[in-house]
Amino acid sequence: MIEDNGPRVDRAAIGPPEHQSMKDQHELDVACMRRAVRIALLGHGLAEPNPLVGCVITDPEGHVIATGHHARHGGPHAEVIALERAGSVARGGTLYVTLEPCRHHGRTPPCTDAIITAGISRVVYGTADPFEPAGGGAAVLAEAGIMIEFLELPQVERLNRPWVTRVTKGRPWVIAKSAMTLDGRIATSTGQSKWISSETSRRLVHRERGRVDVILTGIGTVLKDDPELTARQGTPRRLAMRVLYDPDLLIPDTAKIIQTARDVPTLIATNAVTLADRSGHAERLREHGIVFMELTADSEDKRLEMMLRTLHKEHDVANVLLEAGGGLSGKLLRAGLIDQLWLFLGPCILGDQQAPGPMRGLSPGWIKESTRLELLSARTREQDVVLDYLVDQGD
Amino acid sequence: MIEDNGPRVDRAAIGPPEHQSMKDQHELDVACMRRAVRIALLGHGLAEPNPLVGCVITDPEGHVIATGHHARHGGPHAEVIALERAGSVARGGTLYVTLEPCRHHGRTPPCTDAIITAGISRVVYGTADPFEPAGGGAAVLAEAGIMIEFLELPQVERLNRPWVTRVTKGRPWVIAKSAMTLDGRIATSTGQSKWISSETSRRLVHRERGRVDVILTGIGTVLKDDPELTARQGTPRRLAMRVLYDPDLLIPDTAKIIQTARDVPTLIATNAVTLADRSGHAERLREHGIVFMELTADSEDKRLEMMLRTLHKEHDVANVLLEAGGGLSGKLLRAGLIDQLWLFLGPCILGDQQAPGPMRGLSPGWIKESTRLELLSARTREQDVVLDYLVDQGD
Repeated sequence: MIEDNGPRVDRAAIGPPEHQSMKDQHELDVACMRRAVRIALLGHGLAEPNPLVGCVITDPEGHVIATGHHARHGGPHAEVIALERAGSVARGGTLYVTLEPCRHHGRTPPCTDAIITAGISRVVYGTADPFEPAGGGAAVLAEAGIMIEFLELPQVERLNRPWVTRVTKGRPWVIAKSAMTLDGRIATSTGQSKWISSETSRRLVHRERGRVDVILTGIGTVLKDDPELTARQGTPRRLAMRVLYDPDLLIPDTAKIIQTARDVPTLIATNAVTLADRSGHAERLREHGIVFMELTADSEDKRLEMMLRTLHKEHDVANVLLEAGGGLSGKLLRAGLIDQLWLFLGPCILGDQQAPGPMRGLSPGWIKESTRLELLSARTREQDVVLDYLVDQGD
Repeated sequence: MIEDNGPRVDRAAIGPPEHQSMKDQHELDVACMRRAVRIALLGHGLAEPNPLVGCVITDPEGHVIATGHHARHGGPHAEVIALERAGSVARGGTLYVTLEPCRHHGRTPPCTDAIITAGISRVVYGTADPFEPAGGGAAVLAEAGIMIEFLELPQVERLNRPWVTRVTKGRPWVIAKSAMTLDGRIATSTGQSKWISSETSRRLVHRERGRVDVILTGIGTVLKDDPELTARQGTPRRLAMRVLYDPDLLIPDTAKIIQTARDVPTLIATNAVTLADRSGHAERLREHGIVFMELTADSEDKRLEMMLRTLHKEHDVANVLLEAGGGLSGKLLRAGLIDQLWLFLGPCILGDQQAPGPMRGLSPGWIKESTRLELLSARTREQDVVLDYLVDQGD
């Protein structure tokens, strides 16, 4: 998720568990787990391709004494960080963690060991880890006499969805971003799009560019806008590779993303046939530092899926920010390859049916045949409305 | 405004004025005036075509002791209601009112008399009344030794804008309502629109239909959807007249709004030439109870303006809820005849460039030439996002 939209923990409501009913205990558990989710999100852009994990530790009276999150791929797990911060006061306390603690030696020692050693009495976890050899941590803890509870929350499910999608589908999480007028247009009919959204909104996009692995666009957008597609606000957490989907290899040498390919990794995904036909052009682009991906599948839907799967498999890409026009966005949507939609609504109306919308190429006859989404958050930034949705993939 | 979007008054922050700095006094004034605005909005659908007015009275220590709003056209003014509720404790207190108190005998005695009699020490008002013979109430109060302050707030300006528009432009306030997908479509390319927005959103629309004087639509919408355009939720505050803009008189006798015209006042605005040419059809429609308005101006923009001005002048119409397709909405927008935009964004995407948008017929080449709006509020209702905007008329 791009932004945390859970309610704040009401600290005043947290009191000693022995004076609380079961209902109060459940409310405390929910509040602490939601806080763990918010803390986990702090790792976005740093922890991937690992899952984002957050941890909250309370003392036996239910007061929060330490928190931690997985803040760096290869770095210590959320539980270990929180336990270190808590020190000896963790003894007898409750540990909340968004993902089942690991029991295996990976890059770091098993979290189960650290939890047992710290004397934690109760562990509440938000997701069972389905992937061996990590799974089974809860059972290890239960054997050690720790009370174990599984707390299912929609917030946890959403937190983990990008990671689960990557692991189960073998492709990165795809976030489509569009800046749109109130009548659903991303540009005028003559192709002008500067600026529909506010400076604040554009800053948010630049920040996100500095947290994802790939910024994906289509040849239409490059020919029209000649964007740079780099993170130009604050300190990027990672350097996103720019990926251009250009099946017919129409990009000119003069495009900004070609001219800057020595500084920012840039990949062009193109049809294998095209690459053979236009080998001279491809060679010149390679001299600029462009890397090619050949797409061989026999339908465009499959070629797009192949592109994403190859980014995941060969380039370790965890997430993709799609900043494209209606053509590529519509194709990805139709192919079920967009997971999240991030809309910036600017306070203006074009009133032009010819002006392009954010997605095209589908033609449902009924509203019920449309692609359904789930609203995550609605916020305002200056005069813009910023909407964040999950796409219902029907699976 | 359709909904109040001001912050709540923080009662805990209200203390004795003698212990407060000037800044605290100003904050108290702002909080009380905002509350007066919210209270004024309770009169929507009841007070029009009068302005919506709200009043708050505090005792000398700054505690709110009574409130009132203008709740019925022809009924007592907000100040009189609040003063009656306050009784003798109003003596020495402050009266906040969104509009300058009247000094004239209209349907009710002058509010200035009531304020002076009640022994109010200080009056803070939000808008000078620009219209004689009512204007000048502040001067009358000042002469009586009451401290007078004018407090300018954007909330007050917005509250009064529909009324000011009516008086200065001689036409009703026009609210365009659209239910739209996330890619800005009000129907599929085959014309299906059921249901883009949620039941909760549709209930909000029905409630608003019961608070406006006119529900306006175009012939395209009637031919496509055959709507009834009546308020079918809760108890309507007034019975809206249905107005159909049908310049070529294409409506069939079988349309629901024709068949129900005996129960709900229904007016068709049509070109004078058409009415002469199609007199037989018009006669049959008259037998169903239809009233006609002949539009004679020489351009469509002027005919649309004439329609609105005639509704205001001859039918005492204060506000219009526009529920039309992109054709009529776009024409009204281009003619500068839409004041407010009320958008319901449903959680779905059509992805079809052929599907109709909420406004058409304009063709700005640059974003800066688009119609600008001011965001009033953004809310969520179930999975819908409900947006309320004022259209910047550039005047």
